[in-house]
Amino acid sequence: MAIASYYTPTHVLMGKGAYKEVVNELKKQNATKVLIHYGSDRIKKNGLLDEVVSLIEESGIKTFTLGGVVPNPRVSLVRKGVELVKKENIDFILAIGGGSVIDSCKAIGYGSLYDGDVWDFYSQKATPTACMSIGCILTMAAAGSEMSDSSVITNDEGGLKRGCNTDYCRLKFALLDPEYTYSLPKYQTACAVVDIMMHTIERFFIKGTTLAFTDNMATALLRTMVKFGPIALTDPTNYEARENIMWASSVSHNGFTGFGNSWRGDWACHQMEHELSGMFDVAHGAGLSAIWSTWARYVYKENPKRFAFFGHEVFGLELTGDDDKDANAAIDKTEEFFKSLGMPIRISDFGITLTDDQLEELATKATFYGKRTLGSFMTLDHDRIKDIYTLAR
Amino acid sequence: MAIASYYTPTHVLMGKGAYKEVVNELKKQNATKVLIHYGSDRIKKNGLLDEVVSLIEESGIKTFTLGGVVPNPRVSLVRKGVELVKKENIDFILAIGGGSVIDSCKAIGYGSLYDGDVWDFYSQKATPTACMSIGCILTMAAAGSEMSDSSVITNDEGGLKRGCNTDYCRLKFALLDPEYTYSLPKYQTACAVVDIMMHTIERFFIKGTTLAFTDNMATALLRTMVKFGPIALTDPTNYEARENIMWASSVSHNGFTGFGNSWRGDWACHQMEHELSGMFDVAHGAGLSAIWSTWARYVYKENPKRFAFFGHEVFGLELTGDDDKDANAAIDKTEEFFKSLGMPIRISDFGITLTDDQLEELATKATFYGKRTLGSFMTLDHDRIKDIYTLAR
Repeated sequence: MAIASYYTPTHVLMGKGAYKEVVNELKKQNATKVLIHYGSDRIKKNGLLDEVVSLIEESGIKTFTLGGVVPNPRVSLVRKGVELVKKENIDFILAIGGGSVIDSCKAIGYGSLYDGDVWDFYSQKATPTACMSIGCILTMAAAGSEMSDSSVITNDEGGLKRGCNTDYCRLKFALLDPEYTYSLPKYQTACAVVDIMMHTIERFFIKGTTLAFTDNMATALLRTMVKFGPIALTDPTNYEARENIMWASSVSHNGFTGFGNSWRGDWACHQMEHELSGMFDVAHGAGLSAIWSTWARYVYKENPKRFAFFGHEVFGLELTGDDDKDANAAIDKTEEFFKSLGMPIRISDFGITLTDDQLEELATKATFYGKRTLGSFMTLDHDRIKDIYTLAR
Repeated sequence: MAIASYYTPTHVLMGKGAYKEVVNELKKQNATKVLIHYGSDRIKKNGLLDEVVSLIEESGIKTFTLGGVVPNPRVSLVRKGVELVKKENIDFILAIGGGSVIDSCKAIGYGSLYDGDVWDFYSQKATPTACMSIGCILTMAAAGSEMSDSSVITNDEGGLKRGCNTDYCRLKFALLDPEYTYSLPKYQTACAVVDIMMHTIERFFIKGTTLAFTDNMATALLRTMVKFGPIALTDPTNYEARENIMWASSVSHNGFTGFGNSWRGDWACHQMEHELSGMFDVAHGAGLSAIWSTWARYVYKENPKRFAFFGHEVFGLELTGDDDKDANAAIDKTEEFFKSLGMPIRISDFGITLTDDQLEELATKATFYGKRTLGSFMTLDHDRIKDIYTLAR
């Protein structure tokens, strides 16, 4: 078996007012010129952006701001960030926002230390060898990018959405203030719950062996989400729900819930979703929910026991001993849970009617034009991927 | 509530042959002169020490070796290490061994960057402001020092055993090779199981609030130990048991199982055990086992529900609804489990008969001669501490 690796150097601080630690953390990093990168107007309206800028400026550190990050962050804005960093000799990047903003920061961090075009790293034309120092004030708990090694960027031309994973982009610090997630719209909260769960689910369903300890941790995380996800939807200012979800979002994608397993994860659903949101700009969590149960029913026969175990541990389903039946009950239950959050469970739930040409295009793009297969639990080639898109239609 | 902090910068690699990554990791740290610090003859006999020295020397990095670390590592040897580091301009410290060796390395790391005597940091006369870079090849899974911020050193004169906790001493890397724990004697393995469990138990029983997510993680870790601890005892070369225990040892003391709780932990049992092993040189895990159930029965009335929950989640005990009864059942069950591992559950099980003078001395030392109380779940002053030592006698 390969050697398992766990590397999460990010200093996480969580609590009410955690964002006020920003100056302290920037000083530790010897930051002198900071790019503050953000997306939504939410942090302008609630005053967070202004307060953070003031705190930092008062400490003698210079700030530059660049807003406008959108969900499925665009390489065009990343290029603007790279230009700004190079022009102003900026030495630290601070994200205020969620996964999209952090991913955009990571891409700026790579691009600023590179002479070529940053998209090279996402189109696999080049591999990063360094990244600038990055920190974040997290105002949305979902992607887990604050502790992960991954970033996903969309190319404005052609709608290609591609990831780049390296340890260089691991954040120096992440300040988690659950209160700043109170104002997230219900739909976004539901998407977040799915996304957080999927980061662990992708690591749970693999071919080969898993570490028992990691299985226990993974299912404990998922149970926590099943409990607090619905509470956050009906009671958005429930601090307990928000803090549990927020910390789960970080842990779910920092590698912990896959440690010691024989594969890094399956990730077929993520990669199929990337094509979907690249083409239609749907929310990532919703896209995952629209695909997962179809994927699960397509692949479960590879190891029905694993799905049965999942249903038992995560949802407390009683095991009948008939693995096939138990596996299907687990899939039904998960689908039902996603639906109860108001999430789509088919692509048509978005109001999208996929044409045959689009199905073919999605499958072709997902394989990088025939250059890769997807998945680990079941290896998916172009035809199987197209099958799943078709069944999920 | 205070702001929760999680900081585990240590790069962990676990698997068969993980120790071979040592050169790669040392290069990443730009190490040029490495002090290899170790304890037992086990790594000499099995050839690990020689192999590691060869690997490192062949890579062009210079090595210096210093053996002789004993359980409850002594400040006298630490001072020798500091002298060697200063004399030879050593720039990296590599531990090969378990918690005692790593703790000794941490103390050398502090002392080498300090003009005064290293014991100042343990007697709270001074606070460290820096530590040298440290890595380890772990050959014993117990103390969790490989990811923790703590080190515990014993002063040869007077048998004082004292801790020092700072983030400066967090290791750069930890190489975990479960096969190297096969040869641990049964008694040491049992001590390790208790020690690992206690690092989470100390964080679980506190006054105030805990994060639900963290409760789920803590109990999942403890269930893993309850399953694999006995397997490692009866089948020492069971790889699955050894790898689960090894990773649990790191996670149990890196802060994860206490994250977001309103107190850093209780630690009364640890501090009472420190006095016991300082006086009698008993194994740390065994000392904890000899005290815990007495402590638990003494304090449980502060929050019987918490103990009932513990018994239900960790041992699957059915809840009767009578919290007092359920709490006692949980304590009985835990005591029984420790006993089943061959661990002492009273101080007399060591063959030690504590005199009244010794009880008074233990209680006095535990309070730092009246300068502190112990515990969080229940605050323990000198008289209560003496009560518990007396009841555990």
